[in-house]
Amino acid sequence: MANIGQMTTATNNQVILRNYVSGFPKESDLYIAPTTVDLRVPPGSMAVLVKNLYLSCDPFSRIRMEKPDPSSPASVALAYSIGKPITGYGVAKTIDSGHPNYKNGDLLWGRVGWEEYSVITPTPSSHFKIHHTDVPLSFYTGLLGIPGLTAYVGFYEICSPKKGETVFVSAASGAVGQLVGQFAKMAGCYVVGSASSKEKVDLLKTKFGYDDAFNYKEEHDLSAALKRCFPEGIDIYFENVGGKMLDAVLENMRTHGRIAACGMISQYNLKEPEGVHNLATIVYKRIKVQGFAAVEFFDKYSKFLDFVLPYVREGKIKYVEDIAQGLENGPSALIGLFHGKNVGKQLVEVARE
Amino acid sequence: MANIGQMTTATNNQVILRNYVSGFPKESDLYIAPTTVDLRVPPGSMAVLVKNLYLSCDPFSRIRMEKPDPSSPASVALAYSIGKPITGYGVAKTIDSGHPNYKNGDLLWGRVGWEEYSVITPTPSSHFKIHHTDVPLSFYTGLLGIPGLTAYVGFYEICSPKKGETVFVSAASGAVGQLVGQFAKMAGCYVVGSASSKEKVDLLKTKFGYDDAFNYKEEHDLSAALKRCFPEGIDIYFENVGGKMLDAVLENMRTHGRIAACGMISQYNLKEPEGVHNLATIVYKRIKVQGFAAVEFFDKYSKFLDFVLPYVREGKIKYVEDIAQGLENGPSALIGLFHGKNVGKQLVEVARE
Repeated sequence: MANIGQMTTATNNQVILRNYVSGFPKESDLYIAPTTVDLRVPPGSMAVLVKNLYLSCDPFSRIRMEKPDPSSPASVALAYSIGKPITGYGVAKTIDSGHPNYKNGDLLWGRVGWEEYSVITPTPSSHFKIHHTDVPLSFYTGLLGIPGLTAYVGFYEICSPKKGETVFVSAASGAVGQLVGQFAKMAGCYVVGSASSKEKVDLLKTKFGYDDAFNYKEEHDLSAALKRCFPEGIDIYFENVGGKMLDAVLENMRTHGRIAACGMISQYNLKEPEGVHNLATIVYKRIKVQGFAAVEFFDKYSKFLDFVLPYVREGKIKYVEDIAQGLENGPSALIGLFHGKNVGKQLVEVARE
Repeated sequence: MANIGQMTTATNNQVILRNYVSGFPKESDLYIAPTTVDLRVPPGSMAVLVKNLYLSCDPFSRIRMEKPDPSSPASVALAYSIGKPITGYGVAKTIDSGHPNYKNGDLLWGRVGWEEYSVITPTPSSHFKIHHTDVPLSFYTGLLGIPGLTAYVGFYEICSPKKGETVFVSAASGAVGQLVGQFAKMAGCYVVGSASSKEKVDLLKTKFGYDDAFNYKEEHDLSAALKRCFPEGIDIYFENVGGKMLDAVLENMRTHGRIAACGMISQYNLKEPEGVHNLATIVYKRIKVQGFAAVEFFDKYSKFLDFVLPYVREGKIKYVEDIAQGLENGPSALIGLFHGKNVGKQLVEVARE
């Protein structure tokens, strides 16, 4: 793809949704097909043509693969379209721009298609220009992007941690969990994480500073595992998984506990979600459960960057990525999320800058 | 019991717990037995001897009838003791007092035993002196007591209602629910209630100003019933019952909805609580679920009285009581709560002032 200046079109490989998914998604639910992209935006347009560098693999994509309910406008708006490229968050470079805030070469992160090139119309609520390039650009799919902001607002804003409190994080080695653990230690809390393999549990304890961790697949009684880790109970639960784990956590919550819920990945592939039985604890212990989404906290993003960038530069925040090379490996990377295959933040490198 | 001044002791009938309860409580789990009470508090004591006038029947008593878990100090502290009178909230009159703030004849409400006379040691977090006696004293077990404060802080503090929002209340004709409905109308909301009989549903619509109401026992699909009442969804749910109703509500909540949970009466008698399946909605719709207890908001009590008393005096707040006459009818009144037998706030009149 040399000398773009002289080319007016290019091949644009895309990851396309083959059919709506029920149950666990398979690689074959997606396929890769080429199309052609015009490398110039039309004169007078506010659009920006970007070359995608990194794509974020997010559990939320599974929800968007579900067949929409035609009676629900929200469901229709959310669902991917069959035969079209799926979309998500990514890091990209401006190739051509009709937008006054973006010029050729500018880097940004935000919503793009799963494809080599995307035509986007940036807004302050959908795209952020990247000003700090002394850190790996891929970090803007995770630590410095939506997962980082999720960890930050979920822990600090929703959970209002106090020094000495106990914190439990599920899916703790994932993009969000690895950060929540480190934020919890900074806040003077005792923090325990759960993950799906010995390798991940070791990572939690040796790299991310978790005080303790367990492999939930090896615990036949999750409530007993939590009781062992938290004999005095849990003040804060950072909820990423739902289902049986949530039930076990409720049994172990302390009075006035807080649960920040940004995902329930264990439930996304189930036709009938698991029943959670211990909800009366919410009354007995006066617990708050708060669902939230980082996209509703974009006004905190620059404050978050000011907070986190110095730690990143000093190496005081550890961050592990699991990078699939090439768009052609995107489908398997995305599907792998639901089998816990990734170690750390899963992303796809489409191209280097 | 005339001329108490000359007597030093009196017979004191008590409602005693016979055994710990599992499943639905029965009248025979309680019995009435006489004891003798000294009508004078010991010299130098801070205690107050009160004559109980009205006792509140509260669903929470069922939880206290459960056999305590010896490994849980909270459970042990909560549980009633076998062979001793059960306790709860009541309205009482001071007969003798060693406490500087209470003199003979003073009326109060707060924690008392289910008995004719109780010896209490009042604290600001357990007892309130009654200053306003131009309203029925029995109201201090409900509208002007814990249920009233529960409705007030739950609706205004926890749910932050906005004009035009939609509100759903379960157990809507109960002590708390009848008030929440009226507060919701005052706040300019659209409010619908559920109850367990046609009589109660009629009361909701004709007396308490509910915009709509349904008998949940006659709806085979609770979610469809809610969809019918709230085609655009529910902004605020005042949760009193839990279980299947909570599941149906979650299916019908709107984005940024709030659920105030002060009780889950449908679950108290179940050995295995019902599973709630739609919790992922909390994430998708960014919902807040907040457990709370009015006893943690006693600092708002005088503000609440200032707010509510003028409405009560003007008859602008409607309030229905279901009064059992005599301590001997206390057990059946209390047990009846769990079968929805009461219409309005259930209480027991032990004696008139």
